[in-house]
Amino acid sequence: MAAKSIMDFDTVALDDEGDAVVIIDQTLLPGRIELISLRSAEEIWNAIYLLKVRGAPAIGVTAALGIYLLSNRIHTEELDEFYLELRRLRDYLNSARPTAINLSWALNRMEETALRKGRLEGLSVDGIKKALRDEALIIRSEDIETCRRIGENALTLVKPGDGILTHCNAGKLATIKYGTATAPIYLGHERGYNFKVFADETRPLLQGARLTAFELYSSGIDVTLICDNMSASVMSKGLVQAVFVGCDRVAANGDTANKIGTSVVAAVAEHYGVPLYVCAPTSTIDINTRTGEDICIEQRPAGEVTEMWYKERMAPEGIKVYNPAFDVTEHGLIAGIVTEYGIAHAPYTESLKSIMDKKDGKTDEA
Amino acid sequence: MAAKSIMDFDTVALDDEGDAVVIIDQTLLPGRIELISLRSAEEIWNAIYLLKVRGAPAIGVTAALGIYLLSNRIHTEELDEFYLELRRLRDYLNSARPTAINLSWALNRMEETALRKGRLEGLSVDGIKKALRDEALIIRSEDIETCRRIGENALTLVKPGDGILTHCNAGKLATIKYGTATAPIYLGHERGYNFKVFADETRPLLQGARLTAFELYSSGIDVTLICDNMSASVMSKGLVQAVFVGCDRVAANGDTANKIGTSVVAAVAEHYGVPLYVCAPTSTIDINTRTGEDICIEQRPAGEVTEMWYKERMAPEGIKVYNPAFDVTEHGLIAGIVTEYGIAHAPYTESLKSIMDKKDGKTDEA
Repeated sequence: MAAKSIMDFDTVALDDEGDAVVIIDQTLLPGRIELISLRSAEEIWNAIYLLKVRGAPAIGVTAALGIYLLSNRIHTEELDEFYLELRRLRDYLNSARPTAINLSWALNRMEETALRKGRLEGLSVDGIKKALRDEALIIRSEDIETCRRIGENALTLVKPGDGILTHCNAGKLATIKYGTATAPIYLGHERGYNFKVFADETRPLLQGARLTAFELYSSGIDVTLICDNMSASVMSKGLVQAVFVGCDRVAANGDTANKIGTSVVAAVAEHYGVPLYVCAPTSTIDINTRTGEDICIEQRPAGEVTEMWYKERMAPEGIKVYNPAFDVTEHGLIAGIVTEYGIAHAPYTESLKSIMDKKDGKTDEA
Repeated sequence: MAAKSIMDFDTVALDDEGDAVVIIDQTLLPGRIELISLRSAEEIWNAIYLLKVRGAPAIGVTAALGIYLLSNRIHTEELDEFYLELRRLRDYLNSARPTAINLSWALNRMEETALRKGRLEGLSVDGIKKALRDEALIIRSEDIETCRRIGENALTLVKPGDGILTHCNAGKLATIKYGTATAPIYLGHERGYNFKVFADETRPLLQGARLTAFELYSSGIDVTLICDNMSASVMSKGLVQAVFVGCDRVAANGDTANKIGTSVVAAVAEHYGVPLYVCAPTSTIDINTRTGEDICIEQRPAGEVTEMWYKERMAPEGIKVYNPAFDVTEHGLIAGIVTEYGIAHAPYTESLKSIMDKKDGKTDEA
């Protein structure tokens, strides 16, 4: 019992000396908990591309802390030169993965901070670097509070004893704490809600089996692992009252890009009359993307499907593989989008806009 | 190019000496094509239970040939003693897997043959043994003809260039030749139809990746492997015009038990307006089972989901796993049930009965 659990480690943090981003290498879970320190731009890019760190919010925090670290090593006192190099680093990190908006959202917020502090507030390059550190740490701590508030809002949608199905990992390991889709599960667990959770294993990279089942099980939550093709079987038996999923980008009309398979769960849930809720920090809502058709879907290597983690090939050599990392769930299949500012319902074009207005302080309803 | 393809080997056959059932060990595919000879009751039972041979029709043929072999080693001239031992062997083999009806269907047909030949036609035990050999070989050759006719019927439901999605393996490897769900694909391929096939990998045991992708690819068919959770993604892009699946047991009302995940594909297909067809030899239609709720669904070991084939565990130790081998697709999600005697449409209670009447020669429409 003295052994540390996965819940005792930070998903993403700045190390004590402030010169590395420390992450849990999620590709080694559940077999081994190993922390790795990212220092160079290439290390950060690779950690994101290779999914050592994954989950839209955690990627955002990694990028924010990462670009702060890298800015520290821009050796110039010239503002223009500093900005030019900062932009180059921003573009480079931003190229690691295309679908999750949090990556560009966090990098843009960091760049805007640098521009504001230098251009408007007249800070020196050194002052800007300190401001970037503060901003990255704020992004990180905001994530904890955002997830907690998403959890409180989502908890109003279920009741003690409910069966909850989740897909992929929108858990603590995808964020800093609580997760998004798992936030109501963790908060409910603290309050004795006794949820029965079903975790889709989530092929091809098995984030559900390796990460969600792992973190929920480590937390003492009643969780049952299923293959992605078993959702209809459990729903047809009445074992699921709600589906909670995370998201990588929500378009203005509510269409939601999330891990491949989400729209399969959504169609199945619709058939069995089970509501599916998307848990979305407002940082993943992209009002500038009109519909799901405008979201770029990352295609990943065939080997993830045909051989990764296997002793032997599990498909013939040379076989064609279709391996998108995400899919888009049409807004019509989504019962609600749960944010830290409340729950949006259809029509989403209006309700998401009103959520974003709340966030921007343009309205003051709770 | 001189290397033999999987298509050159028999899925199930009696060896030349007539003293073993020879099967392709399907658990080793696609890495290695290895034939194994089954001689004892335990070897036959294990081959079925461990899925070395699988697919409802192939299981039926294996059981038929198997019980003939075993009957040969019943050393008695006493009819009653022979029948008693035959029944014990039948019950034992029948216990290997509960869901596919073909196992009990083939064993019952063999037992009925033995009873008829002995009790009604007055044959000796030796004569009965020879009759059992004939009957098993007839069951085997009927399977080829049945699949071909299913293919011809199913081919009327699609057109050249169509995208076809299939789940699990209802292919040559699940039968003797052609397969059931793949029969229209093979026949269409011979006629230059240029189908674009999508093969669901079919977790946990990956029959789609290891077997369907393998056999279609070996036959020069355009096949793309997808994970089970990608069906909505390809259907939403308009890439699929029809879904063909096999089945393990069809109830009188059309509810169909087939490999776990079939009902997920069915709900997704319904959402995207793609027809799903069940390819069912009449031997899998069970008029005595009223609805899908009366079909026993086999539960399999958790390890198939959490560790099989993997170098490292892919889920935490101790995690609860739900691992049904099959699910039931409600008749309402099925656009047609394609048999060797024609295509049944809703209402199935009537159309399946009329198909069975045709089979029994009670009506003479084609």
